[in-house]
Amino acid sequence: MSGYNELMCFVRQTEALSQAAGRLGWDQQTVMPRGANAQRSEEMAALEEVLHARRTDPRLGEWLEVAQAPDEAAAANLRELRRDYARHAKVPARLAAELARLTPLAQSAWEDARAAGDVAAFVPWLSQMIALRREEGQAIADGGDPYDALMADYEPETDSATVAAIFDSMRPRLVALRESILGADTPPALTGQFPQAEQMRLSRKLAEQFGYDFTRGRIDLAVHPFSSGSGDDVRITTRVDERDPFNCLYSTLHEVGHGAYEQGVDAAHLLTPIGRGASMGVHESQSRIYENQLGRSASYCYWLFGAMTSEFGALAIADAEAFYAAVNRVTKGYIRTEADEVQYNLHIMLRFDLERALIRGDLSPNALEEAWNARFQEDFGYPVDKPANGVLQDVHWAVGLFGYFPTYALGNLYAGCLHKAMRVALPDLDAQLRAGDLAPATGWLHENLQRFGALRSPRDTIANACGFAPDADPLMVYLEEKFSALYRL
Amino acid sequence: MSGYNELMCFVRQTEALSQAAGRLGWDQQTVMPRGANAQRSEEMAALEEVLHARRTDPRLGEWLEVAQAPDEAAAANLRELRRDYARHAKVPARLAAELARLTPLAQSAWEDARAAGDVAAFVPWLSQMIALRREEGQAIADGGDPYDALMADYEPETDSATVAAIFDSMRPRLVALRESILGADTPPALTGQFPQAEQMRLSRKLAEQFGYDFTRGRIDLAVHPFSSGSGDDVRITTRVDERDPFNCLYSTLHEVGHGAYEQGVDAAHLLTPIGRGASMGVHESQSRIYENQLGRSASYCYWLFGAMTSEFGALAIADAEAFYAAVNRVTKGYIRTEADEVQYNLHIMLRFDLERALIRGDLSPNALEEAWNARFQEDFGYPVDKPANGVLQDVHWAVGLFGYFPTYALGNLYAGCLHKAMRVALPDLDAQLRAGDLAPATGWLHENLQRFGALRSPRDTIANACGFAPDADPLMVYLEEKFSALYRL
Repeated sequence: MSGYNELMCFVRQTEALSQAAGRLGWDQQTVMPRGANAQRSEEMAALEEVLHARRTDPRLGEWLEVAQAPDEAAAANLRELRRDYARHAKVPARLAAELARLTPLAQSAWEDARAAGDVAAFVPWLSQMIALRREEGQAIADGGDPYDALMADYEPETDSATVAAIFDSMRPRLVALRESILGADTPPALTGQFPQAEQMRLSRKLAEQFGYDFTRGRIDLAVHPFSSGSGDDVRITTRVDERDPFNCLYSTLHEVGHGAYEQGVDAAHLLTPIGRGASMGVHESQSRIYENQLGRSASYCYWLFGAMTSEFGALAIADAEAFYAAVNRVTKGYIRTEADEVQYNLHIMLRFDLERALIRGDLSPNALEEAWNARFQEDFGYPVDKPANGVLQDVHWAVGLFGYFPTYALGNLYAGCLHKAMRVALPDLDAQLRAGDLAPATGWLHENLQRFGALRSPRDTIANACGFAPDADPLMVYLEEKFSALYRL
Repeated sequence: MSGYNELMCFVRQTEALSQAAGRLGWDQQTVMPRGANAQRSEEMAALEEVLHARRTDPRLGEWLEVAQAPDEAAAANLRELRRDYARHAKVPARLAAELARLTPLAQSAWEDARAAGDVAAFVPWLSQMIALRREEGQAIADGGDPYDALMADYEPETDSATVAAIFDSMRPRLVALRESILGADTPPALTGQFPQAEQMRLSRKLAEQFGYDFTRGRIDLAVHPFSSGSGDDVRITTRVDERDPFNCLYSTLHEVGHGAYEQGVDAAHLLTPIGRGASMGVHESQSRIYENQLGRSASYCYWLFGAMTSEFGALAIADAEAFYAAVNRVTKGYIRTEADEVQYNLHIMLRFDLERALIRGDLSPNALEEAWNARFQEDFGYPVDKPANGVLQDVHWAVGLFGYFPTYALGNLYAGCLHKAMRVALPDLDAQLRAGDLAPATGWLHENLQRFGALRSPRDTIANACGFAPDADPLMVYLEEKFSALYRL
């Protein structure tokens, strides 16, 4: 067996074990009996220890040193494996163990602090977490920027200076747009009672319409919707609020974007490192374009208005145009996960600037709440009312996820680019969306992006699909045009 | 760390991984998308390889050589681990690999042969399987009986000569009872239409009534009902035939017996080798006593008649007495899994004698069908009509499960012993069952058997609970009395 094949035989087993762990994660969040929590932690820890041992196995280092790539896919797999191995090799076992020990404690402290509205009680835990993650970033970065090193776990081959420059260029335009919108009249929301069974039936219909393959997936309920798995076992979840059907339907479309991406990767890459999405940012580009540029478009809303009328009977809203406005309502709010297309990115930029400063040591955890509240007032135009609606709203920092937030906004930015290119390639897109025919749009994404998995870097994945290098302008133009028209600005 | 603790730290992780594998098995048979089959095989194989490597890890041998047991539970764990390690160490890797390769092929050949009614097409595969399993049995047995060695995988510390003597003593009594019953009038069956939702609701009610803990378990549908998992995550399944509610309800009670056993083992034994049922036979004793001695008793049927009337409305049957007779109907049939309490054991004895002869080389696979049909005519009184109702009906031999069948009848025998002892301990049992109060009966089983897990050998587990050594007489007396009364023999 050649060196590459021997290596990949080992790697394929690791990927299979990783999929098995993912399945247990799905199980835990959907069907697991609640009394099984402690036992499941032990089962997951045992599996994670097996995975960690395989990912840091010295044989991997030996194989990777000499392996030759027979083709482009192999070269990409070696690139992924070498980055991952080097990353793990640089982190001392002592540090990894300290992080593993701290994470559940810090998460639990965050939950208590959030419930009590007591930021000061969380600060010591946050300080410990920042210190450990900074040390980890420094170890990986080899003298480079520790925040960049952490970000690369989620968005490889992307540096935070570039991201900062992009975000800085978007921010004033987003703030101006947000101000104009909130100064205009807010359209009415859709009200009514929408039974769970009908919401779920419509969700399944939408998922199929957007190309999700139920023979290789399933949809369930979860408190926080997520998708999991790769290849032929990709599962999505959604949630139901019987007074707000858009919560369920757009959670579904969001997760369908993630799921269809994983289902769409070429079967040849199954259970190899490139057999999944290229990065968190590219993944988010798929969930966002399904949910927003396609799902919240005027043309698709026209179709959805009819579909919802069929499912639920006459809606308490004037017509398809009012329905479209209700889907795209922009209102004041504090919570990132509930934010609309315009304000969402401002939430991310706030977190990106603050967490970058925290990791670099430019901001003390003691000063974080004040910095958060000041920035929120500046960008959103009204003050934070309580910590649970401010600095304590997200779990990310409590569990050490520094460098993750920017991938959400990068996903939006990438979705903007893909949408621009898709509009050029599909001149009849609006007519197709009005007819509920999503096949051309999702087919274009599959053909130009999804099937390649992680064959290319995130940036190159987007550039290859679009025919131009990703930047923020398409997203900004899209948002300005869409919301100017909607709000008659 | 002492030697024993170091060993158990490793073993506990192995047990946790084994539980994780069990969860994937549950997933595969209940919720997995059908397109995920091939990928799941690869995931399971990777996990099984990890488990195999751990179970044959040379460090285990070193630890086991020197480990001292600090207490009774530790001694039992060492006993289980030493037996398991010695067993694995004796089987050459080449033979294990050949068995792993042959199993799916032989199973697939069996499926085709069964569908086509073509025994001859299956014989070559069966011959290969027998040869490999015989070789494995010989390797484990070290000059002893290869069939005994195989049986010990499912029922340790039990030899087939003893089992043969027990079965031989039961067989004429069972044949005589079967003949008398089939010569008498058959009571009417329960007919009607019983919707799935109501069957499942009643199933949940029965499961709770029999002490199954839904905070540490769940019930789902499966083609072939099974239970899985240990400790705090023990899941059961059932099936629904809308024309035969007893199929669902008694499948549920059967699996509740298995599930309650696993849930009932002392938490101190969680994720250790003794933290589960003592053997397949002892496990089956729990499923059978829940299903039969308790669930199919006249007293419980009195309660169930009322409960089913509440759930489904008036039943098309005269009264509780007729209902009890319908639950316990004995009719001619070919299929083991559909057999009643009387005929079931005859099915097992037939298979036990034949498979023991096959492994020992006393019966050629070419002569198997003829031997099966002759024995069936002898014990059941009518001829086999087709191979799918005869020698090709069970998957067990196709996948190499030789030595497994006798555990079903041992389970019945053990259940007979436990029932006898329980009746002495609980003089008011019938009044309790008539009131639908199962707590005294299941509490007695928990207190005297379930909580100990595999602390003792299967035989000692039963003897400890009953206060006498297990033998066939209690079961035979129970069956003769019950069915003589029912059929007025």
